[in-house]
Amino acid sequence: MAKKARRPAAPVTPAAPAVELSEADHRTLGTLRSLADRVVEGAVASRPPHLDIPSRSLGNVRFNKAKRFIEMGSGKNRRELFNLAQAKAYMQTMLVASGCKALVEQGKSTSIRGMYYLLKHTIAGTKEETFDEQADCDPIIEDVEVALNTLREELHIYAQNKGSIVGNLVFRDSGDEIDCSRMGSGGYTIPSIVEPNVIQFLKCDAKFILHVEKDTVWRRFNEDKFWRKHNCILTHGGGQPPRGVRRLLNRMHHELKLPIYCLLDNDPWGYYIYSVIKQGSINLAYESRRMAIPGAKFVGLRSRDFERCELSPSVIIRLNDQDIKRAKQIAQYPWFVDKKPWQKEIELMLRNGFKLEVESLISKDISYVTETYVPERLAEQDFLD
Amino acid sequence: MAKKARRPAAPVTPAAPAVELSEADHRTLGTLRSLADRVVEGAVASRPPHLDIPSRSLGNVRFNKAKRFIEMGSGKNRRELFNLAQAKAYMQTMLVASGCKALVEQGKSTSIRGMYYLLKHTIAGTKEETFDEQADCDPIIEDVEVALNTLREELHIYAQNKGSIVGNLVFRDSGDEIDCSRMGSGGYTIPSIVEPNVIQFLKCDAKFILHVEKDTVWRRFNEDKFWRKHNCILTHGGGQPPRGVRRLLNRMHHELKLPIYCLLDNDPWGYYIYSVIKQGSINLAYESRRMAIPGAKFVGLRSRDFERCELSPSVIIRLNDQDIKRAKQIAQYPWFVDKKPWQKEIELMLRNGFKLEVESLISKDISYVTETYVPERLAEQDFLD
Repeated sequence: MAKKARRPAAPVTPAAPAVELSEADHRTLGTLRSLADRVVEGAVASRPPHLDIPSRSLGNVRFNKAKRFIEMGSGKNRRELFNLAQAKAYMQTMLVASGCKALVEQGKSTSIRGMYYLLKHTIAGTKEETFDEQADCDPIIEDVEVALNTLREELHIYAQNKGSIVGNLVFRDSGDEIDCSRMGSGGYTIPSIVEPNVIQFLKCDAKFILHVEKDTVWRRFNEDKFWRKHNCILTHGGGQPPRGVRRLLNRMHHELKLPIYCLLDNDPWGYYIYSVIKQGSINLAYESRRMAIPGAKFVGLRSRDFERCELSPSVIIRLNDQDIKRAKQIAQYPWFVDKKPWQKEIELMLRNGFKLEVESLISKDISYVTETYVPERLAEQDFLD
Repeated sequence: MAKKARRPAAPVTPAAPAVELSEADHRTLGTLRSLADRVVEGAVASRPPHLDIPSRSLGNVRFNKAKRFIEMGSGKNRRELFNLAQAKAYMQTMLVASGCKALVEQGKSTSIRGMYYLLKHTIAGTKEETFDEQADCDPIIEDVEVALNTLREELHIYAQNKGSIVGNLVFRDSGDEIDCSRMGSGGYTIPSIVEPNVIQFLKCDAKFILHVEKDTVWRRFNEDKFWRKHNCILTHGGGQPPRGVRRLLNRMHHELKLPIYCLLDNDPWGYYIYSVIKQGSINLAYESRRMAIPGAKFVGLRSRDFERCELSPSVIIRLNDQDIKRAKQIAQYPWFVDKKPWQKEIELMLRNGFKLEVESLISKDISYVTETYVPERLAEQDFLD
């Protein structure tokens, strides 16, 4: 009698994959396998297994003036199996890599929370957990990303889903044709994974992208059909845009050759959001290459708008100590420090002693922002770079 | 020579409306006008102007056992213009009502932040602001809602946009036909305002609605095309669902006669989300009538799932003091206190001493939740009510 097939105990050992893999998936699997191969080779040659992982410390991050984004240096940290202080991290790294391999092979994706639960277990014969908490797993996921020079999305790990899109653009997403010009009042939710194997651009009539900070502002623009009148694409990222939004903006900018204008608040947080969209973030410098958009422009709000737009003193919000500290830090960012217009912008905000939200323009008229403010800035090509 | 027309100074006085108003808009305008008419009538009859506003205090909220949702009692508070302590609130109420009137007449909508900026100004001849901060404006908006017996959405004020939908449903949104079965990996963003004048259901083949707590879980179900296999609609609300999501669930449940099953975490927060979806919230009791879904069912996670699903002890999360306190409070809610299954559910969680997230099921298999957990509960009709 044939033995009954047993389901493998370890969740990271999938059943034989029955899914068709994309070219990108094959590439990712190749790099995951080569990681494992190097361990085997080392073992066969009786060398203690190790991994060299690019360092994500501040000291290994620099602003590349030619490329105009933040990138990682060449510093690496060696992680050795036969080193008591590093053995656990070494094993965790291998575990995350094997989890990613299982996801890619099965054609499935999960969140960082899902990855944590997928891999969390008590190591056989011990009371030791593979990961005690989420915070132990997250940096290891980043390690695997940098070590393999891949994006998290290529490892089939998704981030938070926030942000929506409407406009004169048609793309295919997982086989469905998405016409962003027929998306009603809600818009299409920008997925977390927008790599070319998921999203393929089909048709784009739009001439530029307007990216706004918040969904409330986005809805004013959508309700007024700004994107139709001005033939553009309209996106928001729910505050600091998540990875999926940044990556989609990056792809649209480069592949569809569309300029990107950012409408953000006149405050340090708005400046910072712009900085991350444009130059990448310091913490995740290794992803700048495929996330940063050095060509992005800042359309406003500007510190001078209080006078220029004749706003009422009622709408100003006083800067607090934290705002002032952050503004001074941002002024010193290497990519702002040499730019006179940005220095003047931040100086004026500090001199004003107040900040302004995009929503404050509604005090002029409900549609002032869509009918006057942005059209005027676009007509004058009046942006901060 | 003809005088040049001047733009009116007050932003709440719109230009003659050129938009076509829906029936609902006419109804809303009627109630707004009758509010103003009562002031005029009072003045003409030399009576001091006043408003009677239904009380939103806890004492005026009760659970209606017949209707099975939380509702407001008949208590009212009088707000008088010629009362120093009430004059400002009286004027603020009139101001919000006039702001809403302007929005409806112009066929535009805004956020509570937008409403605040729209109305904020220094009162002529004084140093007094109409509203000092957002927190002064929000309760007045709620006052206008209850005084007029309207929903915020009918006053053209939108809330946060979060939550997505996919599944076998077609509706029209602001003129665009939205086919939720062709929404790729991202899904359709559920708008904040989903009243019948915005969204009209066109075609529904689905047999039920599965509402899940988080977007990360939603994506597992969408990626596995659960809604296609099980012929349903799949929604999430990004945690505690915002008003638009609750209202859309309510409309689909009542108008399309679809049962709603909620997949939430096994923790006090999951219980609370269920409670709000089902019975309404205590703070906003006046909206239950059109938001609450007494027929909603709780599909899990359940406290007994740790044993039933043979989960690893690695995935449990210990209850903290706050969890225990909240769980005991929720057990005492009038709509849970008489339900033995709910009492057992909460007791078992407290006895377990731990909570479980939906994501923890991934430790069984990436698709355990979509292929085993929910299908088994559906087949057995095993729900908490």
